[in-house]
Amino acid sequence: MVLLSVLTPVLALILCLVLGFMLVKSRGTDATSTEQNKGATKGDFRPWVDQDLQDDTEIAAEGEDDWVDSREVEDLAHVPYSPPRYPEETMRQRSKDFYTLMNQRRSVRFISPEPVPRQIIDDVILTAGTAPSGAHTEPWTFVVVSDQEMKSQIRNIVEEEEEVNYRQRMGDKWVHDLAKLRTNWIKEYLDVAPYLILIFKQTYGILPNGKKKTHYYNEISVSISCGMLLAALQNVGLVTVTSTPLNCGPQLRLLLKRPANEKLLLLLPVGYPAADATVPDLKRKSLNEIMVHI
Amino acid sequence: MVLLSVLTPVLALILCLVLGFMLVKSRGTDATSTEQNKGATKGDFRPWVDQDLQDDTEIAAEGEDDWVDSREVEDLAHVPYSPPRYPEETMRQRSKDFYTLMNQRRSVRFISPEPVPRQIIDDVILTAGTAPSGAHTEPWTFVVVSDQEMKSQIRNIVEEEEEVNYRQRMGDKWVHDLAKLRTNWIKEYLDVAPYLILIFKQTYGILPNGKKKTHYYNEISVSISCGMLLAALQNVGLVTVTSTPLNCGPQLRLLLKRPANEKLLLLLPVGYPAADATVPDLKRKSLNEIMVHI
Repeated sequence: MVLLSVLTPVLALILCLVLGFMLVKSRGTDATSTEQNKGATKGDFRPWVDQDLQDDTEIAAEGEDDWVDSREVEDLAHVPYSPPRYPEETMRQRSKDFYTLMNQRRSVRFISPEPVPRQIIDDVILTAGTAPSGAHTEPWTFVVVSDQEMKSQIRNIVEEEEEVNYRQRMGDKWVHDLAKLRTNWIKEYLDVAPYLILIFKQTYGILPNGKKKTHYYNEISVSISCGMLLAALQNVGLVTVTSTPLNCGPQLRLLLKRPANEKLLLLLPVGYPAADATVPDLKRKSLNEIMVHI
Repeated sequence: MVLLSVLTPVLALILCLVLGFMLVKSRGTDATSTEQNKGATKGDFRPWVDQDLQDDTEIAAEGEDDWVDSREVEDLAHVPYSPPRYPEETMRQRSKDFYTLMNQRRSVRFISPEPVPRQIIDDVILTAGTAPSGAHTEPWTFVVVSDQEMKSQIRNIVEEEEEVNYRQRMGDKWVHDLAKLRTNWIKEYLDVAPYLILIFKQTYGILPNGKKKTHYYNEISVSISCGMLLAALQNVGLVTVTSTPLNCGPQLRLLLKRPANEKLLLLLPVGYPAADATVPDLKRKSLNEIMVHI
């Protein structure tokens, strides 16, 4: 409330609208809301916030260890496996080239509206789908959005939630940094990029008998899959920025009509970089900083 | 205890040795042990179990949203970014070829002891290090083990813990499936593969003033990085199996002398496939099963 006194009336109005929208939205949700509000540090007016952020499947002690060794999979016949073997010199060259290519990847927020062939997106998703997963559950759903109206709705949800996030967590910096922060919750790329890929993790599956089956390590599996997706995008010269839309998961899940076992993990806008794209001039850690050899 | 009655004396002896080893080990640990034993469903003799499996940083509500937008990074100068642009036909071909290559990847447990050039491993780790991370924290440590004695110790720890896991969780199937299960906790590849890569997530960092700084989304970031590592291995014709050694994290962390902020996330044995390598004859989901287009 202290903050409100320094806001312009227009901003106060926007805040009221956001709050109003949230109240309306929260009534329409099927959420078992109140006990799951751990994450909200200030204000208790966002009853659905964080409902989808909980994922304690990873800490269960009964997960599969070796990911091909699930009881489902171990009953399968084994077949010989002999992938291509490269001469050592070729290996060295391929290894160096791949690193060089991947090292050019950057998270890019300035994405061109230029259309991207749909086949490329299909291939990239297929590539992501080759990732290993705990007990071969393949616990991922890739929602590819190219519809302009849907992209706008997603942008609205993310920006409204982001604005609240920034206000809440940066309360004490608010007065000084308003202009700067504003650039942080405005996500133009969300309706400019030709594609948005929303990556959902399936926290459990439904067995033929109707029972739920926990997908162990689903978050790790889906994140690994995202790593392969990023490699595939980089390989064709497309860009993205890996984002984890804070607290928007439940709303986006409802908007995209995904079932309750799916939780939004990552949102990636995908396209060609804008002609005037820039990236922060950051460095990566050196090999010695990330690797220990024993 | 019911189980013991059906075990052969030899197996009972092994069990006693395992228990004894655990008791000895647990005294040598600096663990704050007892309250963190959530995961163990039977038996309370593994005080350090799961101490490292807890990671609630992902459910905090204050993580960064857009991963390049951290407050550290936003103060950096921006520089133009113009990655190579491929003609559409080239893109299509590259995209198809990359999918074909990645689709040949399988989790392989039969790894040849044949040496692998060290430069390849360096390149693969460097490639993993190009992954994006929350607030550009790069919260990963790749411990590469080629020392034979260390590999044997790792194998011992993993197999001992695995045996307990299998006994505890599969109690009712024990009598019938002993022979079959046994193949599950024996992990020959752990001291046969020329390299083991143990991937640690850094759950927090230490600021210059000595304070801890939570690494938001560290598990997602490190898993994405692992996805890029898998792609890099596949690109040079090496194989691995993605494993999450259940409950071994704390022991392996101590063995490898990693600091307390690092938790073991994944363990990957790396090498050429054995000449007689086989894989389960499993299928992947189709594009329609993993993708929704809107």
